[in-house]
Formats: sequence, structure tokens, C-alpha cells
Amino acid sequence: MKRLWIDSDTASDDAVAILMALRWPGVHVEGVSIVAGNVPVPLGSRNARYTIELCGADAPVYEGASRPLMREPVWAYFFHGADGMGEMNYPEPKRGPASLHGVLAMIEALRRFPGEITLVTLGPLTNLALALRLAPDIVSLVSHCYIMGGAAATLGNITPAAEYNIWVDPEAARIVFHSGLPMTMVGWELCRGEANLNDAEMAEIRALNHPLADFVLDCNRQAIRVNREWLHEPGLPLPDPVAMAVALDPDVVTRASSHYVTVEVSSDLTRGMTVVDERGVLNQPPNLRVVWEIDVRRWKQDLLDVLRES
Amino acid sequence: MKRLWIDSDTASDDAVAILMALRWPGVHVEGVSIVAGNVPVPLGSRNARYTIELCGADAPVYEGASRPLMREPVWAYFFHGADGMGEMNYPEPKRGPASLHGVLAMIEALRRFPGEITLVTLGPLTNLALALRLAPDIVSLVSHCYIMGGAAATLGNITPAAEYNIWVDPEAARIVFHSGLPMTMVGWELCRGEANLNDAEMAEIRALNHPLADFVLDCNRQAIRVNREWLHEPGLPLPDPVAMAVALDPDVVTRASSHYVTVEVSSDLTRGMTVVDERGVLNQPPNLRVVWEIDVRRWKQDLLDVLRES
Amino acid sequence: MKRLWIDSDTASDDAVAILMALRWPGVHVEGVSIVAGNVPVPLGSRNARYTIELCGADAPVYEGASRPLMREPVWAYFFHGADGMGEMNYPEPKRGPASLHGVLAMIEALRRFPGEITLVTLGPLTNLALALRLAPDIVSLVSHCYIMGGAAATLGNITPAAEYNIWVDPEAARIVFHSGLPMTMVGWELCRGEANLNDAEMAEIRALNHPLADFVLDCNRQAIRVNREWLHEPGLPLPDPVAMAVALDPDVVTRASSHYVTVEVSSDLTRGMTVVDERGVLNQPPNLRVVWEIDVRRWKQDLLDVLRES
Amino acid sequence: MKRLWIDSDTASDDAVAILMALRWPGVHVEGVSIVAGNVPVPLGSRNARYTIELCGADAPVYEGASRPLMREPVWAYFFHGADGMGEMNYPEPKRGPASLHGVLAMIEALRRFPGEITLVTLGPLTNLALALRLAPDIVSLVSHCYIMGGAAATLGNITPAAEYNIWVDPEAARIVFHSGLPMTMVGWELCRGEANLNDAEMAEIRALNHPLADFVLDCNRQAIRVNREWLHEPGLPLPDPVAMAVALDPDVVTRASSHYVTVEVSSDLTRGMTVVDERGVLNQPPNLRVVWEIDVRRWKQDLLDVLRES
Ligand SMILES: [Ca+2]
Ligand SMILES: [Ca+2]
Ligand SMILES: [Ca+2]
Ligand SMILES: [Ca+2]
Repeated sequence: MKRLWIDSDTASDDAVAILMALRWPGVHVEGVSIVAGNVPVPLGSRNARYTIELCGADAPVYEGASRPLMREPVWAYFFHGADGMGEMNYPEPKRGPASLHGVLAMIEALRRFPGEITLVTLGPLTNLALALRLAPDIVSLVSHCYIMGGAAATLGNITPAAEYNIWVDPEAARIVFHSGLPMTMVGWELCRGEANLNDAEMAEIRALNHPLADFVLDCNRQAIRVNREWLHEPGLPLPDPVAMAVALDPDVVTRASSHYVTVEVSSDLTRGMTVVDERGVLNQPPNLRVVWEIDVRRWKQDLLDVLRES
Repeated sequence: MKRLWIDSDTASDDAVAILMALRWPGVHVEGVSIVAGNVPVPLGSRNARYTIELCGADAPVYEGASRPLMREPVWAYFFHGADGMGEMNYPEPKRGPASLHGVLAMIEALRRFPGEITLVTLGPLTNLALALRLAPDIVSLVSHCYIMGGAAATLGNITPAAEYNIWVDPEAARIVFHSGLPMTMVGWELCRGEANLNDAEMAEIRALNHPLADFVLDCNRQAIRVNREWLHEPGLPLPDPVAMAVALDPDVVTRASSHYVTVEVSSDLTRGMTVVDERGVLNQPPNLRVVWEIDVRRWKQDLLDVLRES
Repeated sequence: MKRLWIDSDTASDDAVAILMALRWPGVHVEGVSIVAGNVPVPLGSRNARYTIELCGADAPVYEGASRPLMREPVWAYFFHGADGMGEMNYPEPKRGPASLHGVLAMIEALRRFPGEITLVTLGPLTNLALALRLAPDIVSLVSHCYIMGGAAATLGNITPAAEYNIWVDPEAARIVFHSGLPMTMVGWELCRGEANLNDAEMAEIRALNHPLADFVLDCNRQAIRVNREWLHEPGLPLPDPVAMAVALDPDVVTRASSHYVTVEVSSDLTRGMTVVDERGVLNQPPNLRVVWEIDVRRWKQDLLDVLRES
Repeated sequence: MKRLWIDSDTASDDAVAILMALRWPGVHVEGVSIVAGNVPVPLGSRNARYTIELCGADAPVYEGASRPLMREPVWAYFFHGADGMGEMNYPEPKRGPASLHGVLAMIEALRRFPGEITLVTLGPLTNLALALRLAPDIVSLVSHCYIMGGAAATLGNITPAAEYNIWVDPEAARIVFHSGLPMTMVGWELCRGEANLNDAEMAEIRALNHPLADFVLDCNRQAIRVNREWLHEPGLPLPDPVAMAVALDPDVVTRASSHYVTVEVSSDLTRGMTVVDERGVLNQPPNLRVVWEIDVRRWKQDLLDVLRES
């Protein structure tokens, strides 16, 4: 059995990623820690708990850092809706959050299962950075850390230079990237274009005629609209589920390599840029595995399989 | 009774400050959290525990953050000696550190005595910054926070622009300065020149013929030498005890005013500078009380009184 | 007749670009200004004059800025050889440089032929930046400015974030990019991979059996070697000739668009990055035309035609 | 005879400094170059020419850089009035500016009188920086350069960290400070407090009953008001005349020393700060003489003498 810890700023695409993990055979989600990102922590906590209940699962949800280390929080309501879930206004979940702080819960879980837990981060890296500074020993306790974040030698989404998760808390990202954790970076570019769910694929999901399948599309309805109108992309972008697919099914990755990667923290213009030294000109040891290319059909198949077996 | 929490990178001048607090009438030191600064945490912890035992006190010592948030640690052995205590090689203290992490212990104490605890920070602000990010509620629980750190519109010590404690972890300082805590900044300039203990004053302390009096001078023997030779100052500079005197005896302050104060974090040249908007040109609300001038005789009298009553 | 002004840090690929311009039908090179870049100004001046004489032309060469505005110069001998010309040690040219400073000569030419001169910059933008600050009126006098420099939403060559010409003098580049000049940016990525001259193409050039054809290959012999061994590229990269081809033959460009583009000047990590706001998220008016794609066969044909007609 | 070149953004206090130079025995003002600063170049040019004509002198005025190297210009109308001269609306001067660009005129003068010219800069350092980049040989041609600008280990005026002239064009200041020129920095703090002209001293000047004496006070009438109301200073601050007094009468200086001094250019917060390494911790060779203290009575006497001998 593979133990997973998910750190998430749960909005609509996080929800799909959490759903994938909960339904993936042989995987046990030990806990979900919530971080400020797309939405404030109380809202992300609610969305995560609703998603878990909808899946009939019981992973505990721990509320974590309510703001980035140094920067003011910047929410992403415009993309995910005022509730972070496409303004579907889902009912209040039955269970509340666990009482332990998300950062402390993550540390405790890693210490309880040394070497066993795979971390998947789907939001800004504030919780993980705080955990690393409070408990440096966790570096050697994590099996692997999959990070949805960054842009590898390509343009960003929130600014021309940076992807949202890293940009929101660049200092946290820098702490994590230089922590020595075994890590894989799954940039936002991997969910663009062909990797978007297109109309036919969304129709296929809808045709499954299953509450979870509907949920995947419904909670992302604003994301679909904004992605098309604002970003001129073809369909539904699912950065967090792509990263989750990479974590759950390594064969989704078709090209990856390890490099020295660092994060810009001093400039306003390039804040949060993930600088990948692809050609090794900085003469630094590699600290991160960068995914350059995924098998788009396989990642979509993974999502469909999870929903089909519902 | 006044409850005190001391956060310290315990080297020689911190030791004197801790001693002052432990012996000040009507004050109870709830705990001492150790932070990386002058010396690594295990050494600072040892020095704090030795000092506490020498005073016959039993304040618990909690080990905290082992490095700054973003920067590599920079130790100050050249000033305090390889043991941080003038290379006096004091014996191992009898008690070990408490098991709780310094940051968590500080949070717990503040929550246990809401509104009652006076914080005195004598090192880099890493522990306090982590506490603020883990437990934002503590902002309203602290009675007042006295910070030994910074330089108010004057030159620094570790660089021309910055004082050591702030320079070591400027990001932590920025978090603290903008936290909304009620704070007083006691810059390093307040222990310079006239505020140094001069030869006559050191002779007066030695003449007390008491182990604690000897300790104050002995553990600082390297600091005295370096201060004279390297900084061309007249005697023994005691930044942490000056800050502690300000915290214990408000009348030590003869001029102070509240301003918007922020910390430079993006430039290498001015990293860690405490920028005091003395004239209000930035149009920001004041966030810090800045001490501009102290009663030098009174602060020295406070130190002597504490030793004399030994 | 099209009037051209070339600004160049003349090393081996600049030489090929200058040769293309001198031999292009209907083009008159009014002057060449030399800037510090690949090589110091006296060496660049010598290389430009040698090239011009070899072509039997008489364009005057004016020596310009001997160093970047703010940064220390960084030469590129490792790529172009100690003489900047593949260590071919070509003989001293017969004519010396013109006496006027390169910046003043450029200003004078632009004022003499208002609206007529096409500027092509093949090195750091120091000369042009100085000209803009000394004579702001030239903004409306330039027909168009083609800039070899930058990297559009892709990795750099000298650092992971930046291309050499822009990195060497990022402040100058920022002045130029925000000057209001009509500009086209030809990034280094356009000469990579397929756009390299490959072995077959180099053999074709050699088979022309002409001194100019030999010159094109000979002066670049170190560039070929370094490009293969160090950058793992297939053959000879010719950034300056590609930019010159774009300036001389607009149909070389197959995809270009106008955007807000600015230059990073404050961070060490991302210094000199050309940040292209491809998706308009910064809400700034476009200031630069970015070439995204060229017709690789056409650019090579342009080069061959120029040599064939020798 | 001492040859002077004055570089100025001529507003009210520059005018007094120019007047002092024109009337100082044994001094010949070779030229005045105008730079963007307090006011735009055409207005500064007009004010300089009016002042020169009022003094019955004929020093030529050359218009120079119309904006800082990298930053947008920021005018100081609030301090000097809409005309830069206390809104006295003085008549148009009879002579126009000389036709040569201020930067080129400065270079030409320095080359004409090698080693003889004392430079006095009273505004942002844009002109001098451009001259240094166009003509690096001038470094060895200047006798000495007196710079009104900066703040030595004390607070700034335009921001808490920076003085106006340096803040307006920090990149130019950095170029100048690291140019190797023999330089003396006269910070704005030297004209504060006691060095202000107080009511009695202004009355003494008015009592001279001379057009030049009236001019000194009249053109500064807004400066006096703003200085009192906004800066809570006692009277009329005259930074440029203080710097001019230092240049004309070396004995005005009572304490000065040479240090490594550099200028912050990358941070918004500390932009334009003149970082003086007073204690040598940066281990860099001194590049600037810093004036720490002046003989306040002597500088005022110098001004009065100049007016009295009118
Ligand atoms: Ca997310
Ligand atoms: Ca300390
Ligand atoms: Ca070139
Ligand atoms: Ca001025």
C-alpha cells in the first residue's frame, strides 16, 4: 500500500486530484493539509472535506498556514468561482477539520511512517516550507514529493515569468526546492493545450452518468469558461490532477530530467520564476526532477478509469 | 508578577541579559527558546542552561529553529569565542533542554497566559516569525515585544547598512515587524561608545567578588578584546543586556518614538537594513516603537544592582 | 536604396552578418559602430574593418562604448577565440577607425537621413542606449530597429534565464526596449537546432570555393567546436546573421507578434531576462515585435545566395 | 585662477550656489551644464541663465540629459515652486542656451583644460555618468569633483534611505561613485538644523539691501515655507550652496574621511541609498571622501561675504 499525504489549497482542480488519489487502487491518503492559495484556508478545508465525503472516504483534513510566508495572499476566485468550486454552492460537509495544525499533522505523519509517505503538493508551498523549518528531519523521511507548480523554461500563467502556486509564495518554494527532499516538479505547461480535457472528453465523462463524474465537470465549470475566454485554451485545464497522475502512475511521464532549479525571490518582475538550469551553466548539483513531457492520452485515461470504476 | 519569555541565540551578552531577567525582582522567566544566531542551537541551548543553573534558577530551555528562514546561517564565533562564552569552556549544565520545540513552546506559553507575557528577543527573529506564521493568534496575546536588533538611521555592525540579528534572518525580521505585535526596537547603536562598560565599571563589577559578577566579565572576555581591536570601541558592548534593561526598566529609555519601520530583504548591499521612516514620508502607519536614546548611567546601574544583590 | 546602420561587437558571427549586409542588393551600410561585447572595442573594430575590406566595401567603422553602462564587461573569447575570429589571426586591416565616437556617429547618421535608416544591433545595447539618452529625438528618426538579443519565453544561453547580449548590459537593453523605437527582437533560440548550419550545408559553402565563403566558415571554426561540445548543438549557430536575414528579408519570419517586453535588471538570478508578456497579463501596451519562428530554409538560402553571388 | 564646471538642475538653491561661484574671487566658471532633476531641463536652463545674467556674468549654459538613465523623472515643484524659483516668475533671460549638448560640452571643457577643472554637481548625476561612459578619459582630467548628494549613515530626505539627487538617478550615481574620479560627497544632512539660515541670518541678508541678496531669499521663499512646515526644520536649507562652499573654501570642512561608498540600485525600498562603509567591513578600497561635519559659521560667513561684496 502506498501512503499519500496531500497538501492542497482545495479549489476545483484540487478536488479532482484528491478524488483521483482517494479512488486509486492501493493508495491510502493519510491526510490532507490545507494551505492558503486559490482560496482561504477555511474554504479550502470545506472543499476538501466535501470532496472526501462525496468519495465516501474518511481522510482527515488539517488546516494549515493561512497566508504566505512573506507576501500578501492573492486568491484565485476569478478562476475557480467565489466558493472555489465553480459556484456550485455544495452543502456543508458533515465532518469538521481535525484539530491539529496542518503543518504539525504533516510532520507527525512523516515521522510515524518514515520513508513511506509520498507527498503531493497542489498549492503554494507554505505548509511544506514551515514543516521543513520546524522539523528538518523530515527531509529524510519523505519517500518522494510531487509538486504541482512552476513553469520549466516557458512562460508562466499568473505573470509572464511565473506560475501561480510558486508566485504566491516564492520564499516557501525556494525553501522547499533547496531542502534536499527528493522532488519532481510538474509545471503548469503540462496541462495546457492537448492536455486540456476537450469537449469530446468532457462529454465522455458526462456520459458516465455518475455523481463523481458530474462533480469533476461541475465544480470546474468556471475554470472551463475562464480558460477558454481569458487564456484562449481549448478546454478544461487540470494542473493538480495531472500532477496527481504523475504521482500515482509514473508512466504518465515520457520525458523528465534532473537539474538545478531555483526560485526567484528578489525581483518583482520575475518573482516566483522557477529557473531550471537545463544546460548546467550554473555548475550546481541537481536538486529537482523536472517533467518535460507527459503521455497526454495516458493521463486522461487515468482520470477516466478512476471515474469509470466509480 | 511580570512574566517574561526570552528568545535567544545564547552567547556571552545574551547570558548577561538572561541573568538580569532571572534576578530582576518581580519577574518570572516562563521559558527561554533558542534560535540559531551567534552560535548553533545546541551550543546556545547549553549556554542558556549553564547560565540559568549558575543563577540557581529553573527556567526551561526549548531548542528552536536551527537556521534562518531563507539564508545560510552565519555564526559569530569571532566575537564570542568558539563556545560563544569567551572560550571559558564552562562545564556541561546538569539539565537538558525541554523536549518541546522552541517555537511550539513559545506559542503554548503565550496561549496559556494571554496578554501577560513580555517577549524579549535577543537573536535573529526566526523563532518568532515561525510562531507568527503557525499561530497568527499570538499577535493579540503578547503584552509587549522588545527586540534587540537593527540600527535606526545609523550604520550597521555586520555590514554598513545592517545589524547582525536582523541581517542574519531579514525575512524573519520583516515578518515580525509587519505582524502587528506591540514592539520596541532596541538598536545596536544604543550599546556603543558611552554605553559600553568601561575599565572603571568593569573593575567595579570585578570588585563585587561574586561568581555572577565574574561570570559577566569572563564570558565576555573575547567580546571586549574584539570590540576594542576591531571596532575601536572603548570597552564591553552589551546589546542584549541593554535591550533587557529597556524591557525590565522602562525609565532606561529617554527618547523613543513610533514609526513605520520595515526591513530590506531584496538587495544584497542593504540586506537586513531596518528602514525607519522617521519623517513619515512613506505615509504608512507606525508599526514599531524605536528607542533613540537611553539613560546610560541608569542602564549600567540596573546591571550593577542585579549583580550587587547577588 | 535601403540605408543600414550596424551596431556590433564584431566577432565571428557578426562578421558574417556584416558581410551579408554589405553584399545584399539595394542596401547601403552607412556605418558600423562598435560596442564592447564578445570582444573589447579595439578588437571588434579591427574585425569589422577586416571584414569590410575583405568584402571590398568602404563602410566607415566608429568605435563606441568600451564597457556596459553598469556592469563589468564579460568577454566571450571561449566561444569566438582570442581574436574573436576563430584564432585565424587575420592581418591588420588597412584603414583605421573613423575618429568620431560610435554613439555620436550613429546619432549624426540618423539625423542626416531622418526616417530612412534601419538599425541592426548585433551586440549589447550600450551604444544605442547612450544614443537614446543623449539624443532622444532619434526615436522618431529610425525606420526600424532589429535586435539580435534575448530569449522569448525560453531558456537563455549565458544563464538559464538570459541571452548573452542582453545579459551583458541589461540596463542598456531596458533603456532601448522602453524607448518607443519601432523594434523587432530576434532571440538566440532562432539560430538553434535546425537553424544551425549543418555539415552538409557547411560543405556546400566550402564547395563554393570562394574567399568569402571560406571566411564565413574559418572565422567561426571555434564557434562550431564549442557549440557542439559545450552546447550539444548540431553545427554552426549564427545568431547575428539570422537577425541580419530578418532585417534584410522580411519573409524569413514566419511567426511574429507584438507584446510588452521588458528586461530584468534587479535580480542576479534572472538578470537580463527578456520577459515577454505573451498573454497580456501585465496590461501594458506592446513595445516590441517578437519573432517566434523563422523559415529556416529561407534564411540559409539567403546566406548561400549572398556567398554564391560573390 | 580656479576653473569651475557646474552641473545643475537649477532651482532656487542651485541658483544661490551658482551665484556664489560666479562671485568668488579667483574662480572662473567655464560653463554650466543642466540636468533633469528639480525641474525639467528647459526650466533649469532658464533659471541658470537668469541667475548668471543677474550676476552680470557670461558663463555659457549647456542643456544636458532630459531624464535619468533608467528611472522616470520626478520633479520637485512642491519644494521650489512651479518655476523652480519660489514662483517669483523672473523675466526671460536675454541669452539662450549654448547649442552644444551639456554632456559633450563638459567633456570638451575637461579635455581643453586637463587637470584644471573642478567639477561641482548640484543635481542628479546623469550628465556626469553619460560623460564618463562616452569619454572614460575624463577620469584623469578632473581636478576634483564635489558632489551635492547622498546621506552618510543617516536618514534621507526623499525616502527614509535616500537623498533626492542620488535617488532620482541612482544608476548614474553608481557609475560616478565607481568611476575613479577624485570625489567629495557633501550629503544633505550638512545643511540641516544649525546649518539652515535662521531668521536672524535671513534678516541680516535682507538688510544688505542689494538685489542679489534679495534674490537669494526671494527665489527660496517656497523652500523656506516647505522646510518649516513639512520637514519641521528651523529655516532655509541650502544644500547646493553648502556643497559649493565646500568646493570654494576647503576650510568649511571640519571632519571628513575617505571610504568605500556605493549606491543601492536594485531595491525599491533603499533605492539611491549612499552606503558608506565607515568601518571598512566590506574590505573595498576607498573611492570617495565623505564630509561628516562642517564649520556652520564659516559656511554662512562665506555666503554673506559673497553677498556683502556685491
Ligand atoms: Ca491547487
Ligand atoms: Ca544575542
Ligand atoms: Ca554579436
Ligand atoms: Ca540642485
